[in-house]
Amino acid sequence: MTEPGEVTIAVRPIGQVVGGRDEAVDDRWDAVTSTIELDPAQLEPGATDGLADFSHIEVVFCFDRVDEDAVCRGTRHPRGRTDWPSVGILAQRAKDRPNRIGVTVCRVIGVGPHSIEVTGLDAVDGTPVLDVKPYLAEFGPRGEVRQPPWSTELMAEYW
Amino acid sequence: MTEPGEVTIAVRPIGQVVGGRDEAVDDRWDAVTSTIELDPAQLEPGATDGLADFSHIEVVFCFDRVDEDAVCRGTRHPRGRTDWPSVGILAQRAKDRPNRIGVTVCRVIGVGPHSIEVTGLDAVDGTPVLDVKPYLAEFGPRGEVRQPPWSTELMAEYW
Repeated sequence: MTEPGEVTIAVRPIGQVVGGRDEAVDDRWDAVTSTIELDPAQLEPGATDGLADFSHIEVVFCFDRVDEDAVCRGTRHPRGRTDWPSVGILAQRAKDRPNRIGVTVCRVIGVGPHSIEVTGLDAVDGTPVLDVKPYLAEFGPRGEVRQPPWSTELMAEYW
Repeated sequence: MTEPGEVTIAVRPIGQVVGGRDEAVDDRWDAVTSTIELDPAQLEPGATDGLADFSHIEVVFCFDRVDEDAVCRGTRHPRGRTDWPSVGILAQRAKDRPNRIGVTVCRVIGVGPHSIEVTGLDAVDGTPVLDVKPYLAEFGPRGEVRQPPWSTELMAEYW
């Protein structure tokens, strides 16, 4: 078994976000339409076949505008809000996190052989996309969801 | 802007899955309890502070037992089932996918400074973990979910 920390795993973007916002703004992401332009060098014909049968996709991407030296590995106040508790980076979805990976469910507007148009993808223009998965209702949480009040307040205007 | 395909992004596991299944079995994953053991070299004290206030986490991991040469970049029948349509790899959640990244929402059982015990994580013993995020109800799909019949059939016994 490989011990964690010993290995580095190389990932290669399968595409990038084109359009939408050019800066990471906190809120109102559902108003944003953008396109995931896929790299034909990373995929073979048919890679998006059948994707239009899904209303939503889950996009895995890299917050590449975050300086790796600025990554938080311990605790911080979400959005710097000192009226919210200081919590661990693994207890928040902030972009300045180890490995700088984002995961977001967004709505599919249109699918082409090398592109996917979406609304509600909270990643800026030029963001490297590492994976696209169909959203299956069964992949949501099993059982009741519980979360702290600060996180509900943070999300109030997010979409 | 970086062109896709030109760059490789290096990620470093923040921990690994310990326990649970030793082989990737198709179904009944919610019966599995396992522990995400975090690597103290990748995190600072407090990285899991506040995580116990969430009922569920989203785990980003690497299907490292999939041979990179076996990755599908075009189309395939999910689970090899020819009674289901052959669809693009981006329209299914199969593990033999570009970048071999998995994302799963699972239930939190217990949280320590360097470990998170969970149920329903569909990743085998030893799997490298790239990220852990709290599951926020607001990060689910906005709007009604639509998905094709084959995907509902596939998920019938998954959890």
